[in-house]
Amino acid sequence: MSTEIKNVYIVIMAGGTGTRFWPYSRTAKPKQFLDVLNTGRSLLQMTYDRFAEYTSPDKILVVSNDHYGDLIREQLPEIAEEHILLEPIKRNTAPCVAYAAYKIKQKDPNAILVVTPSDAVIFDISRYIENIDLAVKGAEQSERLITIGIQPTKPETGYGYIQFLESDESIKPVKTFTEKPDKDLALKFIESGDFVWNAGIFVWSLSSIVSAFEKHQPEVADVFNKGASSYYTDRESNFIKEAYAVTKSISIDYAIMEKASNVYVLLGDFGWSDLGSWDALHELLPKDEDENHTSKHTITYNSANNFIKAEKNKLVVISDLEGYLVADVDDVLLICKKDDAIRFKNLVSDVKNEKGDRFI
Amino acid sequence: MSTEIKNVYIVIMAGGTGTRFWPYSRTAKPKQFLDVLNTGRSLLQMTYDRFAEYTSPDKILVVSNDHYGDLIREQLPEIAEEHILLEPIKRNTAPCVAYAAYKIKQKDPNAILVVTPSDAVIFDISRYIENIDLAVKGAEQSERLITIGIQPTKPETGYGYIQFLESDESIKPVKTFTEKPDKDLALKFIESGDFVWNAGIFVWSLSSIVSAFEKHQPEVADVFNKGASSYYTDRESNFIKEAYAVTKSISIDYAIMEKASNVYVLLGDFGWSDLGSWDALHELLPKDEDENHTSKHTITYNSANNFIKAEKNKLVVISDLEGYLVADVDDVLLICKKDDAIRFKNLVSDVKNEKGDRFI
Repeated sequence: MSTEIKNVYIVIMAGGTGTRFWPYSRTAKPKQFLDVLNTGRSLLQMTYDRFAEYTSPDKILVVSNDHYGDLIREQLPEIAEEHILLEPIKRNTAPCVAYAAYKIKQKDPNAILVVTPSDAVIFDISRYIENIDLAVKGAEQSERLITIGIQPTKPETGYGYIQFLESDESIKPVKTFTEKPDKDLALKFIESGDFVWNAGIFVWSLSSIVSAFEKHQPEVADVFNKGASSYYTDRESNFIKEAYAVTKSISIDYAIMEKASNVYVLLGDFGWSDLGSWDALHELLPKDEDENHTSKHTITYNSANNFIKAEKNKLVVISDLEGYLVADVDDVLLICKKDDAIRFKNLVSDVKNEKGDRFI
Repeated sequence: MSTEIKNVYIVIMAGGTGTRFWPYSRTAKPKQFLDVLNTGRSLLQMTYDRFAEYTSPDKILVVSNDHYGDLIREQLPEIAEEHILLEPIKRNTAPCVAYAAYKIKQKDPNAILVVTPSDAVIFDISRYIENIDLAVKGAEQSERLITIGIQPTKPETGYGYIQFLESDESIKPVKTFTEKPDKDLALKFIESGDFVWNAGIFVWSLSSIVSAFEKHQPEVADVFNKGASSYYTDRESNFIKEAYAVTKSISIDYAIMEKASNVYVLLGDFGWSDLGSWDALHELLPKDEDENHTSKHTITYNSANNFIKAEKNKLVVISDLEGYLVADVDDVLLICKKDDAIRFKNLVSDVKNEKGDRFI
């Protein structure tokens, strides 16, 4: 497949500092850099691996925060230094996409871009690549901004929903975007059958996304267009520092996808999880007969449906616990109900407020 | 007080390898060497401190296992090397008492001995020393083996009970000893009013205890009497290795106290805890408004009556837990109901069986 697709560039967005897996994921080493599934590869590496046979390593880029440069170099030595794009400050996904797009434009103005998060899991990689390839071909044919939709399996309130217009084509026009609906609305979306989850995976030609920035975010377009003579030179780093200082912080969904009229969705059928919570991870990992996911040295008594996360050399003995997360990582021990997302979010926030960044 | 009591020797028994506070107490550093009450002094040191004004440091001995020699030297540098009695193998308390008694006999045959565990807590030390002094005077007056009884506060099944005969004297004749009664019997003992707990604190003259060994344990007496020419010499260590190889393993209660007719009890009124469980320790330590004993960095949500034990630099976040022990010490994390003594005992035993001595 790779022989016919010469100009597909993969842009891996790896700047998240998410605390969904706190205290396992920490600001110093967030989720995408962790071997969350115990495969021997981090989520970032698994994201890279997915495309390794679809395109060549010199067409894979990673955009992330400055702090994570060394982690990326260590985990993905195959990627050239010029394709590790480091942001000096967090500015959400639109500047991230713009930076990659305007940079690639200097090298290959006819490029097709695949933009993907670095921290989701794909279960059927062959199907995934077939889906991506279909979208790539769609993006080559006409000026379309294509997003990959995921068939919802539950009324998830933490995701974005994409409503599509039914058509015979595999790539369908998008009617609406809705971010994080409440439970009732999410239920209605699922029942209606014409809503899918927004996986944050985008496929578009470079010319399409540049046009879209020029039309819907002219200021952002202007900022990154000014770098034309700096990209791929030793002036790039300084230029980017100045660009990020002035560009606004905005998501690609809000900046472009919700505004553009040429937005399409391809319904993905490859199996997907954004691994957005400990509970989601618990579903995926191996468990004992009592549905406990355990660490290497674990002894349980009268305990079921727990997620035990501890270092390999640590003995964990658990008695009379049901439905708990027990995460003992470095200098933090967290014990809480595994499925209480609100409590989890609050406690991470409290730790930050009460103890500063020390434990985050 | 110390001026008039010239020949009182304190024998601190510190050989326990108890796992009651596992994983905080480990075989390498058992309970008596730990600063369990966060006072800055270990239980052994607190035991030593209690007698520091009652007798002089050269009359305080510690008997313990060989493995703990360095810990004792480190924690009690005041004690002369010749008064750190190291047992090559565990042989329960009778050989321990015999070793100390026959050794002291070489130096001071008129000595009065106070034998005490190293891992209990005394709340009113002045009253305690008054009690001890009363027993010492009683032991000086006649050939009596005096034990200190503790007024029971609950039908504890893990203790020994001493039944005494009512008398006008403060030191009362003992009628029976009963080890670890079942709950019903313990209740009856308490209701009867003439039973006290055996604190394992003994006061007797050297001549009384030597006579008692000769009469009730002639083999043990024989073994340790043979060391007469070795004690306080560089032959002592070799002699003791041989003596412990041949002496039987037996408790002082069973070997002497339950057999002798000159056994007395002094009813202690100083406040005492043997700190026999995490639950007992929880009662003594400071707690927050929800009855949680917490470590330095702890955040709790909807959690009450828990015992959190973790290292000072560890953040512990606990949600929706009630009545649990959370002990995160070195390479062990234990989470279990705080008051389930049977489960606790079993799990420690399972850890030993399943994982060997590595975590014990």
